[in-house]
Amino acid sequence: MIVCCLDMEGVLTPEIWIEVAEKTKIKELRLTTRDLPDYDALMRRRLKILRENGIKLKDIRRVIAKMEPLPGARKFLDALRARQEVIVLSDTYYEFAMPLMEKLGRPALFCNWLSTDQKGFIARYHLRQKNGKEAAVRALKNIGFKVKAAGDSYNDLAMLEAADGGVLFRPPAKIARAFPRFKVTKNYPALLKALI
Amino acid sequence: MIVCCLDMEGVLTPEIWIEVAEKTKIKELRLTTRDLPDYDALMRRRLKILRENGIKLKDIRRVIAKMEPLPGARKFLDALRARQEVIVLSDTYYEFAMPLMEKLGRPALFCNWLSTDQKGFIARYHLRQKNGKEAAVRALKNIGFKVKAAGDSYNDLAMLEAADGGVLFRPPAKIARAFPRFKVTKNYPALLKALI
Repeated sequence: MIVCCLDMEGVLTPEIWIEVAEKTKIKELRLTTRDLPDYDALMRRRLKILRENGIKLKDIRRVIAKMEPLPGARKFLDALRARQEVIVLSDTYYEFAMPLMEKLGRPALFCNWLSTDQKGFIARYHLRQKNGKEAAVRALKNIGFKVKAAGDSYNDLAMLEAADGGVLFRPPAKIARAFPRFKVTKNYPALLKALI
Repeated sequence: MIVCCLDMEGVLTPEIWIEVAEKTKIKELRLTTRDLPDYDALMRRRLKILRENGIKLKDIRRVIAKMEPLPGARKFLDALRARQEVIVLSDTYYEFAMPLMEKLGRPALFCNWLSTDQKGFIARYHLRQKNGKEAAVRALKNIGFKVKAAGDSYNDLAMLEAADGGVLFRPPAKIARAFPRFKVTKNYPALLKALI
Protein backbone atom coordinates (compact mmCIF):
# COMPACT_ATOMS: atom_id res chain seq x y z
CA MET A 1 0.00 0.00 0.00
CA ILE A 2 1.20 3.46 -0.88
CA VAL A 3 1.17 6.57 1.27
CA CYS A 4 1.67 9.85 -0.55
CA CYS A 5 3.57 12.52 1.34
CA LEU A 6 2.89 15.98 0.00
CA ASP A 7 4.55 19.26 0.76
CA MET A 8 1.99 21.95 1.60
CA GLU A 9 3.22 25.41 0.53
CA GLY A 10 3.81 25.50 -3.21
CA VAL A 11 2.04 22.19 -3.79
CA LEU A 12 -1.36 22.70 -2.14
CA THR A 13 -1.35 26.27 -0.84
CA PRO A 14 0.45 29.56 -1.48
CA GLU A 15 3.47 30.47 0.66
CA ILE A 16 2.15 31.71 4.00
CA TRP A 17 4.99 34.09 4.93
CA ILE A 18 4.82 35.78 1.52
CA GLU A 19 1.10 36.37 2.00
CA VAL A 20 1.66 37.70 5.52
CA ALA A 21 4.42 39.99 4.21
CA GLU A 22 2.10 41.34 1.54
CA LYS A 23 -0.91 41.85 3.75
CA THR A 24 1.09 43.47 6.56
CA LYS A 25 3.23 45.41 4.04
CA ILE A 26 6.40 44.37 5.93
CA LYS A 27 8.83 43.50 3.17
CA GLU A 28 11.35 41.90 5.51
CA LEU A 29 8.90 39.08 6.22
CA ARG A 30 9.49 37.93 2.65
CA LEU A 31 12.90 36.61 3.68
CA THR A 32 13.21 32.87 3.14
CA THR A 33 15.90 30.27 3.75
CA ARG A 34 17.23 31.25 0.33
CA ASP A 35 18.18 34.63 1.84
CA LEU A 36 19.06 33.41 5.31
CA PRO A 37 19.98 29.72 5.15
CA ASP A 38 20.01 29.23 8.95
CA TYR A 39 16.37 28.40 9.70
CA ASP A 40 16.66 29.20 13.38
CA ALA A 41 18.16 32.63 12.66
CA LEU A 42 15.43 33.25 10.08
CA MET A 43 12.60 32.34 12.46
CA ARG A 44 14.04 34.41 15.31
CA ARG A 45 14.26 37.36 12.91
CA ARG A 46 10.68 36.85 11.80
CA LEU A 47 9.37 36.65 15.36
CA LYS A 48 11.33 39.80 16.27
CA ILE A 49 9.88 41.69 13.30
CA LEU A 50 6.35 40.61 14.21
CA ARG A 51 6.78 41.81 17.78
CA GLU A 52 8.33 45.14 16.70
CA ASN A 53 5.35 45.73 14.44
CA GLY A 54 2.78 44.75 17.05
CA ILE A 55 1.63 41.74 15.02
CA LYS A 56 0.23 38.94 17.17
CA LEU A 57 -0.59 35.34 16.29
CA LYS A 58 -4.26 36.22 15.97
CA ASP A 59 -3.40 38.91 13.37
CA ILE A 60 -1.51 36.38 11.27
CA ARG A 61 -4.35 33.91 11.62
CA ARG A 62 -6.69 36.59 10.33
CA VAL A 63 -4.55 36.94 7.19
CA ILE A 64 -4.38 33.18 6.75
CA ALA A 65 -8.13 32.77 7.25
CA LYS A 66 -8.60 34.71 4.01
CA MET A 67 -6.15 32.60 2.07
CA GLU A 68 -7.35 29.87 -0.27
CA PRO A 69 -5.63 26.67 -1.37
CA LEU A 70 -4.05 26.86 -4.84
CA PRO A 71 -6.68 26.65 -7.61
CA GLY A 72 -7.46 22.98 -8.26
CA ALA A 73 -5.66 21.73 -5.13
CA ARG A 74 -8.81 20.48 -3.38
CA LYS A 75 -10.00 18.57 -6.43
CA PHE A 76 -6.55 17.02 -6.92
CA LEU A 77 -6.34 16.05 -3.25
CA ASP A 78 -9.84 14.52 -3.23
CA ALA A 79 -8.98 12.42 -6.27
CA LEU A 80 -5.71 11.28 -4.70
CA ARG A 81 -7.29 10.50 -1.30
CA ALA A 82 -9.99 8.42 -2.98
CA ARG A 83 -7.20 6.14 -4.20
CA GLN A 84 -4.52 6.13 -1.52
CA GLU A 85 -3.51 7.48 1.83
CA VAL A 86 -2.12 11.01 1.96
CA ILE A 87 -0.12 12.78 4.63
CA VAL A 88 0.88 16.41 4.24
CA LEU A 89 4.45 16.96 5.48
CA SER A 90 5.23 20.60 6.06
CA ASP A 91 7.69 22.87 7.83
CA THR A 92 4.85 25.23 8.72
CA TYR A 93 2.99 25.39 12.05
CA TYR A 94 -0.36 23.93 13.03
CA GLU A 95 -1.49 27.35 14.25
CA PHE A 96 -1.00 28.69 10.73
CA ALA A 97 -2.07 25.72 8.67
CA MET A 98 -5.35 24.60 10.21
CA PRO A 99 -7.71 26.97 8.34
CA LEU A 100 -6.12 25.93 5.04
CA MET A 101 -6.30 22.25 5.95
CA GLU A 102 -10.00 22.66 6.62
CA LYS A 103 -10.50 24.10 3.15
CA LEU A 104 -8.62 21.11 1.77
CA GLY A 105 -10.89 18.58 3.48
CA ARG A 106 -8.67 18.00 6.52
CA PRO A 107 -5.92 15.74 5.20
CA ALA A 108 -3.54 14.49 7.91
CA LEU A 109 -0.78 17.04 8.53
CA PHE A 110 2.57 16.49 10.22
CA CYS A 111 4.24 19.82 10.96
CA ASN A 112 5.49 22.03 13.81
CA TRP A 113 3.91 24.32 16.39
CA LEU A 114 4.14 27.70 18.06
CA SER A 115 3.75 29.02 21.56
CA THR A 116 2.57 32.51 22.42
CA ASP A 117 3.28 34.77 25.37
CA GLN A 118 0.62 36.28 27.61
CA LYS A 119 0.09 39.18 25.24
CA GLY A 120 -0.50 36.89 22.29
CA PHE A 121 2.81 37.43 20.49
CA ILE A 122 4.49 34.35 19.09
CA ALA A 123 7.17 33.64 21.68
CA ARG A 124 8.72 30.44 20.33
CA TYR A 125 8.54 27.93 17.54
CA HIS A 126 8.81 24.21 18.21
CA LEU A 127 10.15 21.81 15.61
CA ARG A 128 8.65 18.36 15.99
CA GLN A 129 12.11 17.06 15.19
CA LYS A 130 15.07 17.91 12.96
CA ASN A 131 14.58 16.98 9.29
CA GLY A 132 10.96 16.22 10.07
CA LYS A 133 9.84 15.50 6.49
CA GLU A 134 12.57 12.99 5.79
CA ALA A 135 12.14 11.30 9.20
CA ALA A 136 8.39 10.95 8.64
CA VAL A 137 8.96 9.25 5.28
CA ARG A 138 11.42 6.85 6.87
CA ALA A 139 9.01 6.11 9.73
CA LEU A 140 6.22 5.30 7.27
CA LYS A 141 8.53 2.99 5.32
CA ASN A 142 9.50 1.30 8.59
CA ILE A 143 5.90 0.42 9.35
CA GLY A 144 5.37 -1.27 6.02
CA PHE A 145 4.25 1.39 3.56
CA LYS A 146 5.60 2.27 0.17
CA VAL A 147 6.00 6.03 0.12
CA LYS A 148 5.69 8.45 -2.76
CA ALA A 149 6.51 12.09 -2.12
CA ALA A 150 5.93 15.36 -3.93
CA GLY A 151 7.45 18.75 -3.23
CA ASP A 152 8.65 21.88 -4.93
CA SER A 153 11.67 23.19 -3.10
CA TYR A 154 15.02 22.65 -1.41
CA ASN A 155 13.50 21.62 1.90
CA ASP A 156 11.67 18.77 0.12
CA LEU A 157 14.69 17.12 -1.46
CA ALA A 158 15.60 14.89 1.50
CA MET A 159 11.98 13.72 1.68
CA LEU A 160 11.96 12.96 -2.05
CA GLU A 161 15.25 11.08 -1.73
CA ALA A 162 13.99 9.03 1.22
CA ALA A 163 10.76 8.05 -0.56
CA ASP A 164 10.31 5.10 -2.93
CA GLY A 165 9.35 7.63 -5.58
CA GLY A 166 9.89 11.38 -5.62
CA VAL A 167 8.08 13.93 -7.81
CA LEU A 168 8.73 17.64 -8.23
CA PHE A 169 5.78 19.98 -8.67
CA ARG A 170 6.47 23.32 -10.36
CA PRO A 171 10.04 23.50 -9.01
CA PRO A 172 12.47 26.34 -9.69
CA ALA A 173 14.38 25.54 -12.90
CA LYS A 174 17.61 25.25 -10.89
CA ILE A 175 16.26 22.37 -8.80
CA ALA A 176 14.75 20.57 -11.78
CA ARG A 177 18.11 20.73 -13.56
CA ALA A 178 20.12 19.63 -10.53
CA PHE A 179 17.88 16.63 -9.74
CA PRO A 180 16.96 15.04 -13.06
CA ARG A 181 16.03 11.76 -11.31
CA PHE A 182 12.84 13.35 -9.97
CA LYS A 183 10.00 13.60 -12.44
CA VAL A 184 8.89 17.20 -12.95
CA THR A 185 5.14 17.91 -13.05
CA LYS A 186 3.56 21.25 -13.82
CA ASN A 187 -0.15 20.73 -13.20
CA TYR A 188 -2.39 18.62 -10.98
CA PRO A 189 -3.46 16.01 -13.55
CA ALA A 190 0.23 15.26 -14.20
CA LEU A 191 1.01 15.17 -10.48
CA LEU A 192 -1.91 12.82 -9.84
CA LYS A 193 -0.75 10.54 -12.62
CA ALA A 194 2.80 10.49 -11.24
CA LEU A 195 1.57 9.56 -7.76
CA ILE A 196 -0.92 6.79 -8.50
CA MET B 1 1.38 18.16 19.44
CA ILE B 2 -0.97 15.23 19.89
CA VAL B 3 -1.96 12.62 17.33
CA CYS B 4 -5.02 10.55 18.19
CA CYS B 5 -4.94 6.95 17.05
CA LEU B 6 -8.42 5.46 16.83
CA ASP B 7 -9.52 1.90 16.29
CA MET B 8 -12.13 1.68 13.50
CA GLU B 9 -14.55 -1.19 14.14
CA GLY B 10 -16.39 -0.71 17.42
CA VAL B 11 -15.21 2.88 17.75
CA LEU B 12 -16.24 4.49 14.45
CA THR B 13 -18.01 1.75 12.49
CA PRO B 14 -19.82 -1.53 13.14
CA GLU B 15 -17.88 -4.81 12.86
CA ILE B 16 -17.53 -5.59 9.16
CA TRP B 17 -17.35 -9.40 9.35
CA ILE B 18 -20.47 -9.53 11.54
CA GLU B 19 -22.35 -7.46 8.97
CA VAL B 20 -21.09 -9.66 6.12
CA ALA B 21 -22.13 -12.78 8.09
CA GLU B 22 -25.61 -11.38 8.59
CA LYS B 23 -26.14 -10.18 5.04
CA THR B 24 -24.80 -13.39 3.50
CA LYS B 25 -26.53 -15.53 6.15
CA ILE B 26 -23.30 -17.51 6.67
CA LYS B 27 -23.08 -17.92 10.42
CA GLU B 28 -19.52 -19.20 10.36
CA LEU B 29 -18.30 -15.80 9.18
CA ARG B 30 -19.21 -14.52 12.64
CA LEU B 31 -16.13 -16.28 14.05
CA THR B 32 -13.68 -13.84 15.62
CA THR B 33 -10.28 -14.14 17.28
CA ARG B 34 -12.21 -14.83 20.46
CA ASP B 35 -13.29 -18.15 18.91
CA LEU B 36 -10.14 -18.85 16.94
CA PRO B 37 -7.23 -16.97 18.53
CA ASP B 38 -4.81 -17.66 15.66
CA TYR B 39 -5.50 -14.77 13.27
CA ASP B 40 -3.91 -16.45 10.29
CA ALA B 41 -5.98 -19.60 10.80
CA LEU B 42 -9.11 -17.44 11.20
CA MET B 43 -8.49 -15.49 8.00
CA ARG B 44 -7.70 -18.62 5.98
CA ARG B 45 -10.94 -20.12 7.25
CA ARG B 46 -12.88 -16.99 6.31
CA LEU B 47 -11.40 -16.88 2.80
CA LYS B 48 -12.18 -20.60 2.34
CA ILE B 49 -15.80 -20.06 3.43
CA LEU B 50 -16.18 -17.14 1.05
CA ARG B 51 -14.86 -19.17 -1.87
CA GLU B 52 -17.05 -22.18 -1.02
CA ASN B 53 -20.09 -19.92 -1.00
CA GLY B 54 -19.18 -18.16 -4.24
CA ILE B 55 -18.73 -14.82 -2.49
CA LYS B 56 -16.25 -12.52 -4.24
CA LEU B 57 -14.61 -9.32 -3.06
CA LYS B 58 -17.12 -7.28 -5.05
CA ASP B 59 -19.99 -8.99 -3.19
CA ILE B 60 -18.50 -8.07 0.16
CA ARG B 61 -17.91 -4.53 -1.04
CA ARG B 62 -21.58 -4.35 -1.99
CA VAL B 63 -22.53 -5.26 1.59
CA ILE B 64 -20.08 -2.74 3.02
CA ALA B 65 -21.27 0.00 0.66
CA LYS B 66 -24.61 -0.12 2.48
CA MET B 67 -23.06 0.10 5.93
CA GLU B 68 -23.01 3.37 7.84
CA PRO B 69 -20.58 4.59 10.47
CA LEU B 70 -21.86 4.29 14.06
CA PRO B 71 -24.44 6.97 14.88
CA GLY B 72 -22.60 10.14 15.92
CA ALA B 73 -19.20 8.90 14.74
CA ARG B 74 -18.84 11.47 11.96
CA LYS B 75 -19.74 14.37 14.22
CA PHE B 76 -17.31 13.13 16.90
CA LEU B 77 -14.55 12.69 14.35
CA ASP B 78 -15.09 16.13 12.82
CA ALA B 79 -14.88 17.74 16.26
CA LEU B 80 -11.69 15.81 17.08
CA ARG B 81 -10.04 16.55 13.72
CA ALA B 82 -10.75 20.26 14.12
CA ARG B 83 -8.55 20.15 17.22
CA GLN B 84 -5.83 17.60 16.57
CA GLU B 85 -4.45 15.12 14.08
CA VAL B 86 -6.21 11.76 13.83
CA ILE B 87 -5.05 8.48 12.33
CA VAL B 88 -7.33 5.46 12.25
CA LEU B 89 -5.37 2.29 13.07
CA SER B 90 -7.23 -0.83 12.09
CA ASP B 91 -6.70 -4.53 11.45
CA THR B 92 -9.17 -4.37 8.57
CA TYR B 93 -8.34 -4.04 4.85
CA TYR B 94 -8.33 -1.00 2.61
CA GLU B 95 -10.57 -2.83 0.14
CA PHE B 96 -13.21 -3.12 2.86
CA ALA B 97 -12.76 0.13 4.69
CA MET B 98 -12.66 2.76 1.95
CA PRO B 99 -16.44 3.31 1.54
CA LEU B 100 -16.78 3.76 5.31
CA MET B 101 -13.80 6.11 5.43
CA GLU B 102 -15.43 8.24 2.77
CA LYS B 103 -18.57 8.53 4.89
CA LEU B 104 -16.36 9.58 7.80
CA GLY B 105 -14.72 12.42 5.83
CA ARG B 106 -11.62 10.47 4.80
CA PRO B 107 -9.48 10.41 7.93
CA ALA B 108 -6.04 8.87 7.40
CA LEU B 109 -6.19 5.09 7.75
CA PHE B 110 -3.32 2.68 8.40
CA CYS B 111 -4.46 -0.91 7.86
CA ASN B 112 -3.85 -4.01 5.70
CA TRP B 113 -4.78 -5.11 2.19
CA LEU B 114 -6.12 -7.95 0.10
CA SER B 115 -5.33 -9.49 -3.23
CA THR B 116 -7.81 -11.25 -5.46
CA ASP B 117 -7.46 -14.02 -8.00
CA GLN B 118 -8.50 -13.75 -11.64
CA LYS B 119 -12.08 -14.72 -10.81
CA GLY B 120 -12.38 -11.99 -8.18
CA PHE B 121 -12.20 -14.18 -5.08
CA ILE B 122 -10.03 -12.92 -2.24
CA ALA B 123 -6.89 -14.98 -2.63
CA ARG B 124 -4.65 -13.57 0.10
CA TYR B 125 -4.52 -11.03 2.87
CA HIS B 126 -1.44 -8.91 3.45
CA LEU B 127 -0.56 -7.56 6.89
CA ARG B 128 1.35 -4.30 6.64
CA GLN B 129 3.43 -5.63 9.51
CA LYS B 130 2.99 -7.66 12.70
CA ASN B 131 1.40 -5.76 15.59
CA GLY B 132 0.66 -2.94 13.19
CA LYS B 133 -1.30 -0.74 15.59
CA GLU B 134 1.34 -0.78 18.30
CA ALA B 135 4.16 -0.25 15.81
CA ALA B 136 2.38 2.74 14.28
CA VAL B 137 1.99 4.36 17.70
CA ARG B 138 5.69 3.83 18.42
CA ALA B 139 6.64 5.25 15.02
CA LEU B 140 4.55 8.38 15.65
CA LYS B 141 6.17 8.84 19.07
CA ASN B 142 9.59 8.44 17.46
CA ILE B 143 8.95 11.34 15.09
CA GLY B 144 8.06 13.70 17.91
CA PHE B 145 4.33 13.35 18.55
CA LYS B 146 2.49 12.69 21.76
CA VAL B 147 0.01 9.92 21.02
CA LYS B 148 -3.40 9.27 22.51
CA ALA B 149 -5.19 6.10 21.51
CA ALA B 150 -8.72 4.78 21.77
CA GLY B 151 -10.00 1.27 21.18
CA ASP B 152 -12.56 -1.22 22.37
CA SER B 153 -11.05 -4.66 22.21
CA TYR B 154 -8.20 -7.09 22.86
CA ASN B 155 -6.39 -6.19 19.65
CA ASP B 156 -6.21 -2.56 20.82
CA LEU B 157 -4.52 -3.13 24.16
CA ALA B 158 -0.92 -3.06 22.89
CA MET B 159 -1.69 0.20 21.05
CA LEU B 160 -3.21 1.70 24.22
CA GLU B 161 -0.20 0.59 26.24
CA ALA B 162 2.26 2.07 23.75
CA ALA B 163 0.46 5.43 23.65
CA ASP B 164 1.01 8.34 26.05
CA GLY B 165 -2.65 8.01 26.99
CA GLY B 166 -5.05 5.11 26.32
CA VAL B 167 -8.85 5.26 26.42
CA LEU B 168 -11.36 2.42 26.14
CA PHE B 169 -14.60 3.03 24.27
CA ARG B 170 -17.54 0.75 25.12
CA PRO B 171 -15.25 -2.20 25.95
CA PRO B 172 -16.47 -5.62 27.09
CA ALA B 173 -16.79 -5.60 30.91
CA LYS B 174 -13.99 -8.15 31.15
CA ILE B 175 -11.47 -5.83 29.47
CA ALA B 176 -12.54 -2.81 31.51
CA ARG B 177 -12.05 -4.79 34.73
CA ALA B 178 -8.71 -6.23 33.69
CA PHE B 179 -7.23 -2.87 32.60
CA PRO B 180 -8.36 -0.30 35.17
CA ARG B 181 -5.56 2.08 34.12
CA PHE B 182 -7.41 2.89 30.87
CA LYS B 183 -10.26 5.34 31.24
CA VAL B 184 -13.56 3.83 30.09
CA THR B 185 -15.85 5.99 27.96
CA LYS B 186 -19.33 5.06 26.82
CA ASN B 187 -20.35 7.82 24.44
CA TYR B 188 -18.72 10.23 21.99
CA PRO B 189 -18.79 13.39 24.12
CA ALA B 190 -16.93 11.49 26.87
CA LEU B 191 -14.45 10.04 24.35
CA LEU B 192 -13.83 13.48 22.85
CA LYS B 193 -13.22 14.93 26.31
CA ALA B 194 -10.78 12.12 27.15
CA LEU B 195 -8.80 12.70 23.94
CA ILE B 196 -8.42 16.49 23.90
